[in-house]
Amino acid sequence: MNKYAVIVAGGSGVRMGSTLPKQFLPVCGKPVLWHSLETFLAAAPDMRIILVLPKDHIPTGQEIIGTTSDPARITITTGGETRFHSVKNGLAAIQAPGVVFVHDAVRCLLSTGLIHRCYESTVEKGNAIPAIQPVDTLRIETPDGSQVIDRTKVRIIQTPQTFFSDILQKAFEQPYDVAFTDEASVVEKLGVAIHLVEGEATNIKITRPLDILLAEKILKENLRA
Amino acid sequence: MNKYAVIVAGGSGVRMGSTLPKQFLPVCGKPVLWHSLETFLAAAPDMRIILVLPKDHIPTGQEIIGTTSDPARITITTGGETRFHSVKNGLAAIQAPGVVFVHDAVRCLLSTGLIHRCYESTVEKGNAIPAIQPVDTLRIETPDGSQVIDRTKVRIIQTPQTFFSDILQKAFEQPYDVAFTDEASVVEKLGVAIHLVEGEATNIKITRPLDILLAEKILKENLRA
Repeated sequence: MNKYAVIVAGGSGVRMGSTLPKQFLPVCGKPVLWHSLETFLAAAPDMRIILVLPKDHIPTGQEIIGTTSDPARITITTGGETRFHSVKNGLAAIQAPGVVFVHDAVRCLLSTGLIHRCYESTVEKGNAIPAIQPVDTLRIETPDGSQVIDRTKVRIIQTPQTFFSDILQKAFEQPYDVAFTDEASVVEKLGVAIHLVEGEATNIKITRPLDILLAEKILKENLRA
Repeated sequence: MNKYAVIVAGGSGVRMGSTLPKQFLPVCGKPVLWHSLETFLAAAPDMRIILVLPKDHIPTGQEIIGTTSDPARITITTGGETRFHSVKNGLAAIQAPGVVFVHDAVRCLLSTGLIHRCYESTVEKGNAIPAIQPVDTLRIETPDGSQVIDRTKVRIIQTPQTFFSDILQKAFEQPYDVAFTDEASVVEKLGVAIHLVEGEATNIKITRPLDILLAEKILKENLRA
């Protein structure tokens, strides 16, 4: 089956206290984005990657693609106003049906094993959303304060969120809604059931300077799942 | 006002893949527990610490106390069957009214600033529970799958959970309930409103080998809040 990774690298990097968006920051000498691209290239020889970048960052993206092991399998698409619009632009570049992995470029430590798990679960159940259990007590705000949520029922959602291309493309034809925080929420609005698969504690999102340090430690100590 | 830190170090360390409980593992050459003790000692010259340890680990705890900057301000109490029972044993060692900080020994990177914030908020509002916002999409299990929770309303709860000693001791006279996942839940059962204060992203709980590496990075790079 055709395999497409839509890698979304649209962040402005405001939280990093850096002018360089976080997807371009170095982790062990290579940009965050490079690590994400290489893992998808390594996951399957027929994986094709659609990299969605803000217009201004396309030259930087092209430079990074040139340093990967197989630039010919990667194409660039321009990002949109929100994540929804960026993913929609990425999906437009898909030319034949297949399985689509939508992934945050800044989650650069995912393993090929997770990609395989998402693929198999999608083939079997129609979609696969990686998720892990929280380790902390959680509360939710209420009109008069807050109350504990049963954390054993809560899942922290990760990417790659994986779907069949036809369902995903159909879902992205819906009008934009601010409640679309991820691809699962867009597909769910069609009435499709979402299937969670086991994610990885090391599949972190690089959002703070601390996360870069953690990512380097994970890579150097070979702790990646 | 009297100040007491009840530091709970009851974990068995199963998740660490180590026979040594996580509170005794080294971070930058000193045990996790040592870091927690030192920060509370540094936070206020009149802070007294009640360290709650499983019976078998009391000798190790005594050794660690001997290496702190002020062993005379630290006393040891034996832990109980659950966290609730351990904290209850710790509270029994408090001899005069004051403010009580109940803290996980494995959150060894809290700052003295957080301790001061919890103190001031307790004096003003009766209690203080540090909490931070999640950065990921969250879902909650439902009978037929899962649904997104509005993450802007969710808070990840940390310690030190801080209260006036009289209310806390009264709360811990209630019979044990499995729903008591932290001190806030015990006090809340009395009908007392819980007040959240801003926690710290670096106030992590050492539960996995990865966390030790992260803790060392935070200390070495001076990223602690």
